[in-house]
Amino acid sequence: SAASTGALMETRGLTVTFLKMDPYINVDPGTMNPFQHGEVFVLDDGAETDLDLGHYERFLDTNLTRLSNVTSGQIYDAVIQRERQGGYLGATVQVIPHVTNEIKARIAQIAEKYEDVDVVIVEIGGTVGDIESLPFLEAIRQMALEDEDHNTLFIHLTLVPYFEGSGELKTKPTQHSVKALREIGIDPDILICRSPQPLTREVKKKIGLFCNVPPEAVIQDLDVENIYELAIQFHLELLDNLLVHYLKL
Amino acid sequence: SAASTGALMETRGLTVTFLKMDPYINVDPGTMNPFQHGEVFVLDDGAETDLDLGHYERFLDTNLTRLSNVTSGQIYDAVIQRERQGGYLGATVQVIPHVTNEIKARIAQIAEKYEDVDVVIVEIGGTVGDIESLPFLEAIRQMALEDEDHNTLFIHLTLVPYFEGSGELKTKPTQHSVKALREIGIDPDILICRSPQPLTREVKKKIGLFCNVPPEAVIQDLDVENIYELAIQFHLELLDNLLVHYLKL
Amino acid sequence: SAASTGALMETRGLTVTFLKMDPYINVDPGTMNPFQHGEVFVLDDGAETDLDLGHYERFLDTNLTRLSNVTSGQIYDAVIQRERQGGYLGATVQVIPHVTNEIKARIAQIAEKYEDVDVVIVEIGGTVGDIESLPFLEAIRQMALEDEDHNTLFIHLTLVPYFEGSGELKTKPTQHSVKALREIGIDPDILICRSPQPLTREVKKKIGLFCNVPPEAVIQDLDVENIYELAIQFHLELLDNLLVHYLKL
Amino acid sequence: SAASTGALMETRGLTVTFLKMDPYINVDPGTMNPFQHGEVFVLDDGAETDLDLGHYERFLDTNLTRLSNVTSGQIYDAVIQRERQGGYLGATVQVIPHVTNEIKARIAQIAEKYEDVDVVIVEIGGTVGDIESLPFLEAIRQMALEDEDHNTLFIHLTLVPYFEGSGELKTKPTQHSVKALREIGIDPDILICRSPQPLTREVKKKIGLFCNVPPEAVIQDLDVENIYELAIQFHLELLDNLLVHYLKL
Repeated sequence: SAASTGALMETRGLTVTFLKMDPYINVDPGTMNPFQHGEVFVLDDGAETDLDLGHYERFLDTNLTRLSNVTSGQIYDAVIQRERQGGYLGATVQVIPHVTNEIKARIAQIAEKYEDVDVVIVEIGGTVGDIESLPFLEAIRQMALEDEDHNTLFIHLTLVPYFEGSGELKTKPTQHSVKALREIGIDPDILICRSPQPLTREVKKKIGLFCNVPPEAVIQDLDVENIYELAIQFHLELLDNLLVHYLKL
Repeated sequence: SAASTGALMETRGLTVTFLKMDPYINVDPGTMNPFQHGEVFVLDDGAETDLDLGHYERFLDTNLTRLSNVTSGQIYDAVIQRERQGGYLGATVQVIPHVTNEIKARIAQIAEKYEDVDVVIVEIGGTVGDIESLPFLEAIRQMALEDEDHNTLFIHLTLVPYFEGSGELKTKPTQHSVKALREIGIDPDILICRSPQPLTREVKKKIGLFCNVPPEAVIQDLDVENIYELAIQFHLELLDNLLVHYLKL
Repeated sequence: SAASTGALMETRGLTVTFLKMDPYINVDPGTMNPFQHGEVFVLDDGAETDLDLGHYERFLDTNLTRLSNVTSGQIYDAVIQRERQGGYLGATVQVIPHVTNEIKARIAQIAEKYEDVDVVIVEIGGTVGDIESLPFLEAIRQMALEDEDHNTLFIHLTLVPYFEGSGELKTKPTQHSVKALREIGIDPDILICRSPQPLTREVKKKIGLFCNVPPEAVIQDLDVENIYELAIQFHLELLDNLLVHYLKL
Repeated sequence: SAASTGALMETRGLTVTFLKMDPYINVDPGTMNPFQHGEVFVLDDGAETDLDLGHYERFLDTNLTRLSNVTSGQIYDAVIQRERQGGYLGATVQVIPHVTNEIKARIAQIAEKYEDVDVVIVEIGGTVGDIESLPFLEAIRQMALEDEDHNTLFIHLTLVPYFEGSGELKTKPTQHSVKALREIGIDPDILICRSPQPLTREVKKKIGLFCNVPPEAVIQDLDVENIYELAIQFHLELLDNLLVHYLKL
């Protein structure tokens, strides 16, 4: 849905680029098993990356590079190498601030390289609550706090499962996930809720009430057959208006 | 206090060795700044380690080696190298199980190398709640769960500050810290509470009630002038009886 | 499933009684709307109670009374009346210890009234994490801690939903629920997992690993057509052995 | 400090009134033991209330009434009485929404009675994390979410203890307390930090970074000899500017 969100912004005349941050420890996906992880996508500059980046390029008017995909393994590897070469002057090297600073530097690098672009979408893979995504989430929390122009927006992707038995959409998993994000200091502005059934007005109100967002910021992401339909669905949910409003574009 | 605990066990005729696990990302303390981190201690096999290991050797009848000190940096470095050499067969490498398995392997290695020893004391540095100690805590949680003989014991070191103003010992920091440990699945069996003032019976009962341990398992660790006094203090608090009881020795 | 658990214990020759604790604030279910809450069950002593108590009586060789059903409303009402009559001697009245003591007194009362009985099953309604069940959970936590004979056992009823889409049983809701219980100081000994599909050995191991219980203590509670089948299902899962073992009966 | 905050707003030409919400279960403080709870203050309309209300009246140009002090006991008593009289039409009565609605109604009542007043300061007693304050916090969370004009402001009072030993101000208790508030859905806008020592710029930045507020919103509340000095101290910390800014007055 990051790709669809980007495509949607392009329809509003905005330019967009991507940074995919993967919390796994593999240094590059070229060595990953295609059966477990899907195929590898080769970018223009020869970097082998996650297949998701292929989706982005297909969807968007942007050329992605080696810089557009960062893994936890790359980050730790860079920090460990720098430490061994004396780059930290013998300091005790810690997740906060050393690992988080490395993550922030990668995001800043993209913003600089694509400085003409209106929006950088940073997608953080994994699940809130997993240990490996914590340094990434702490890094973006700090960036938003330090961003004095308030040009940052947090979108959180959640699940709203449907129980055949009771014929109900269950909002608890979304509530748990938002609560876990809030505990680590991030308040999502928009929730994109994957669901096998349309979210009723009632369900959106309930999610909004318990997750501290207005109901209009609860966007449904129905399981669609064709991934291209998703951008249209988001448009019908007025997601583009929300994005432009929050980012003051 | 890990060293004092070990010394205390030796007075009961038990043999003991140590494993110090440091959550910082430096690969070896030989490159660390002595002004920030204290001096470096050189072990018999030439490994430069944390000064704490010097304390252990002085206190205990054990010879420590390169294996006796593990840092987060070493663990991540080993996992990243193994992944790059294809050691994980292209799998997605994650904190759980890959990093935690590496930590468990280091503990098992010590247990094997010192197989004649009655007790291995594994000290995990850092503060509960910090991101960097999470993989270590998850690893020991799993080890205890998998230990079918229930020969594992968790000791948690906490603070009980004293407020001059109100003349009170504050138990909240200890409660918070134990709650944070419990959330990640570890129930401490014994609490060693650092405090500038003796813990009254009342304070021990209160800590026990809120932290789910019997009051006898709340052990005071008064700020002592001479670090050698601490083992005696622990003995007066009957810590050795508790240890022998819990470990069925 | 509390009733089935009780029936199972009776087949082992044990005698059992029940205490149902409902966190809702209604003082007695006689005034509750039957369409919303199901019918009311009238006990031998004329008390109108929750229909669940009817299930218990039908299942078990026990006569339940007015004392066998307690609501949050009754507890608060009793505490407020006592305070107004000076029963707390002007003290500041708080949830801990005043409300929790009232709850503990109700449990003790049952234990006394049915002193010949081997086991008192205390069922606490509601969902872990809701505000209204917190005083009940704190009360039973304290009782278990104060029970020097370790004759207390915590059974936690959780959900393991099945997703048609992916064809998977989801263990996250169970993990969240157990984590929430642990945060408030209760470690469940046995998990009874409601599920529309049988729990495989693999799923039980995963739940056990993340919830700190042995896999044998993960008991499946398949949606059965006939509620009487549940006791048989529990027997096949060896729940009765576990109960007798934990309670040392 | 609620009284000082109010006094400060009056110096800016604003009119202010108070609502003190006490989570204890006593229905009225007239029956409370003066040795444990301090003296009772009698308001103009004859209501006996908490002594804090005396402070407010002395500080502020406002006449407080019976409505200006609400306890948990009053709230539960009202809900239980209404339920028994059929006021909920037999519905299951719960903390959310029934108790929280009662709390919201009390706040709305004050806002209506003092409709000419610019600001209503609602002070919630007790400690974040205690069970008894949860319904009050949930009620104000909902009110802020429902307030479409964003005229609500959350001020959180925390402790920053000073350790004689290390000569340091400790920010952890403040971090824990803010984290606990955030978990239940409230993001404080301003932190008033009680401390025996002045907060340095460095400490304010650290608190701000970890608690998601700008450093200017971290206000020191030094232990002052004379309670009247506090309003002056707050003014020097520019608290009045912040208040006027956040409330758009």
